[in-house]
Amino acid sequence: MIRRTSALVRAMLDLVRRGNLRGFIAMAEKAEPADVGEVLSALDEKERIQAVEAMPRHLSAAALVEMPDEAQAEETFAALPPEAAVEIVEELPDDDAADLVGGLEPEDRRRILAELETTERTTVEQLLQYDPETAGGLMTRQVVTVLDTATAGEAIESLRRQAEAVEDFTTVYVVDAARRLRGVLPLKRLVTSPAERPVRELMEEPAARVAPEEDQEEVARVISHYNLPSVPVVDAAGTLLGQVTFDDVIDVVEEEQTEDILKFGGVSGDEELAGRWTDAVKSRLPWLTVNLATAFLAGAVAASFQDRISRHLGLVFWMPVIAGMGGNAGTQALAVTVRRLALGLIPPGRFLRTVGKELAVGCINGLAMGAIAALVSQFLGQGPRLGLVVTASMIGNLFIAGFAGAFVPMFLERIGVDPAVASSVFVTTFTDVCGFLLLFGLTGWMLGV
Amino acid sequence: MIRRTSALVRAMLDLVRRGNLRGFIAMAEKAEPADVGEVLSALDEKERIQAVEAMPRHLSAAALVEMPDEAQAEETFAALPPEAAVEIVEELPDDDAADLVGGLEPEDRRRILAELETTERTTVEQLLQYDPETAGGLMTRQVVTVLDTATAGEAIESLRRQAEAVEDFTTVYVVDAARRLRGVLPLKRLVTSPAERPVRELMEEPAARVAPEEDQEEVARVISHYNLPSVPVVDAAGTLLGQVTFDDVIDVVEEEQTEDILKFGGVSGDEELAGRWTDAVKSRLPWLTVNLATAFLAGAVAASFQDRISRHLGLVFWMPVIAGMGGNAGTQALAVTVRRLALGLIPPGRFLRTVGKELAVGCINGLAMGAIAALVSQFLGQGPRLGLVVTASMIGNLFIAGFAGAFVPMFLERIGVDPAVASSVFVTTFTDVCGFLLLFGLTGWMLGV
Repeated sequence: MIRRTSALVRAMLDLVRRGNLRGFIAMAEKAEPADVGEVLSALDEKERIQAVEAMPRHLSAAALVEMPDEAQAEETFAALPPEAAVEIVEELPDDDAADLVGGLEPEDRRRILAELETTERTTVEQLLQYDPETAGGLMTRQVVTVLDTATAGEAIESLRRQAEAVEDFTTVYVVDAARRLRGVLPLKRLVTSPAERPVRELMEEPAARVAPEEDQEEVARVISHYNLPSVPVVDAAGTLLGQVTFDDVIDVVEEEQTEDILKFGGVSGDEELAGRWTDAVKSRLPWLTVNLATAFLAGAVAASFQDRISRHLGLVFWMPVIAGMGGNAGTQALAVTVRRLALGLIPPGRFLRTVGKELAVGCINGLAMGAIAALVSQFLGQGPRLGLVVTASMIGNLFIAGFAGAFVPMFLERIGVDPAVASSVFVTTFTDVCGFLLLFGLTGWMLGV
Repeated sequence: MIRRTSALVRAMLDLVRRGNLRGFIAMAEKAEPADVGEVLSALDEKERIQAVEAMPRHLSAAALVEMPDEAQAEETFAALPPEAAVEIVEELPDDDAADLVGGLEPEDRRRILAELETTERTTVEQLLQYDPETAGGLMTRQVVTVLDTATAGEAIESLRRQAEAVEDFTTVYVVDAARRLRGVLPLKRLVTSPAERPVRELMEEPAARVAPEEDQEEVARVISHYNLPSVPVVDAAGTLLGQVTFDDVIDVVEEEQTEDILKFGGVSGDEELAGRWTDAVKSRLPWLTVNLATAFLAGAVAASFQDRISRHLGLVFWMPVIAGMGGNAGTQALAVTVRRLALGLIPPGRFLRTVGKELAVGCINGLAMGAIAALVSQFLGQGPRLGLVVTASMIGNLFIAGFAGAFVPMFLERIGVDPAVASSVFVTTFTDVCGFLLLFGLTGWMLGV
């Protein structure tokens, strides 16, 4: 996905960089917060803090929470003078306030919280109790509710009173006197019904509800599965605690996407993309060490045949080719299988069929690559026997790659391990080792030790 | 992301498989369409078609469009008897109808369209003009509009009349007499305003609008960037053509995620995950062929040193280790850089800094891996000189890997090539070739030819 920086963002960036903060603020007042957030993100740390401090508070608040990189927003917020930080928190909806305050060091967090008004402090503190990657951590407590005993006319009256406090209301929740969730009231039905109609007759059963401890991935799945603009968060007693809205879910889906690609590339899923290089070393070194151990295994297999290699030096050309192609074909099968698992596209009981498909693909692709290998081997003048060895090794290794690429992730998922994170190291080790065993083993058999 | 199949879905699946279609339909009537879609997806083709035919049409229509795999839904739809297909299309919102009909062979498509009512046929035909991967292909023409000359009270009256035809209205669009988009009217403001207030005073400037030709990725970016429940689609004259809603965008984001992981794994981004093995061969063979060509390059480099290898057979152990570790470290840097590019986290002018970070990471990780390599080499009794060679090669290749992993995708993006699809082959070839050159070159220098 190629991103474009809009002309507006570039113009604002230019103003800040030329030191014209007043001109920047005048433009920012008219721009969407998301665009101002993009400008902030592109600035140097020092310029960014200056700009946030200089902006009117409602603007810096809105722009901070819309910055594309959450970690960067938290760092900027932490670097602000306490008075500015408090004023910004006061401008924010409760869930965004909790996200920013939650990113602070415990000491700074206490200091900011102490400065807030009591109601605001209580709400933010309540939200901070939840793990940020759960429904509770994503939700806002600002929901629009009407009583289940009201009429349509009374409900509209009640919405009018709540309109001040709540930013936007895609969903109106119907609750009883104890704030237990009774239903949802589509605004469409409310708007188009006679005033005396009881709310109870207009409300619908919510398509889904989630517990505050629910993992954010599951919340995203629920919203995406049922196409909901928001999902209510309720506790065990059925009390409405808040709601998670679709826009948070798009962010979660993008975060998960980043995690999945990083894991697939052998990087810890929580490496901050724009983080410092020292953090990147910490996130990648453990995985490289695991890879080194498995590389030693492949090296040891190759070394155990070193006498055979010295007698048939033509094998040196084929070592990286056979092992590498197995790795490539295995990674292909792996990418497809990991994605099928993630999207729930492998129904229960289709284990064998899925492996079978990849075996068939590996076999045919092996025949194609093996044929090219045979030609190249003859072109290099390596004789028909070595040609047969490399062809058979290529076919065999691509067949094995298809098996490993499908079997390993499905097996890992079955035993409860995330298939995205651990598969690639197993698959490529497997194809390296098997590739060498085939190449050198068949050489021994066809051409003698 | 590990998916759970809910108990409800399993229960429905069980009923169909035991041939109890009546029991299944009774449950499906009460379930959410998305859950029924999941059941369909888990069935065999034959069972699935039987179930869709047996269900009441409103139910089969809703379940078909909610199937997790769009291609599977299209295949099922194409296999239905024409009468059933027509009845299903009549039950669907226009955008879903166009998606299903658009997936048919031209002849079947004409046959179904001919059977539809004139209005419905015209709408579907209009939507079919657009590329399915654009705003026009995603949009629904069913939007709620009010005239810019109306009062709040008249607007509510008008909504009441439109309520029948339009399924849900998150956004109310304000248009002039020529249906040119003038603004959006938040339902909240409408509900909470006095009846005599003119709509013109209540409406807001839309945060964004898109052209029908706009690519679906850009539409997703706009909705996600501005946190919109829907975005209006307008033509060059400003006429409101329809809207794209947030739920379509979640699907697009998931599709893009699949494409990105597949491309990263060296598979064509449009391979159907649950497609036939013959399609998988077609999608993967071209990429494997490119990989084979680059593998020959690495093989040729290794082969050019075959005399040196025969004199220093200890090198055989290190060939897969040095090349493989370079590939791993390069893939790590690549995953992070590709993701940073996709999320727009590399601001203009940060090219050098981004490469610099990966060079630093490669250098430090190289030192760590090089130290382990030195120890293993001594443990294998290969002597201090070969130990120095493998340590230096490891450090050098991981440094090169950091460079290639950051530089290649940024360079490809700069020249307008999708960095996700083409990077990995260049990076791993580069690290293979450089790894061998370092290992064999340094051997020659330190230990003689």
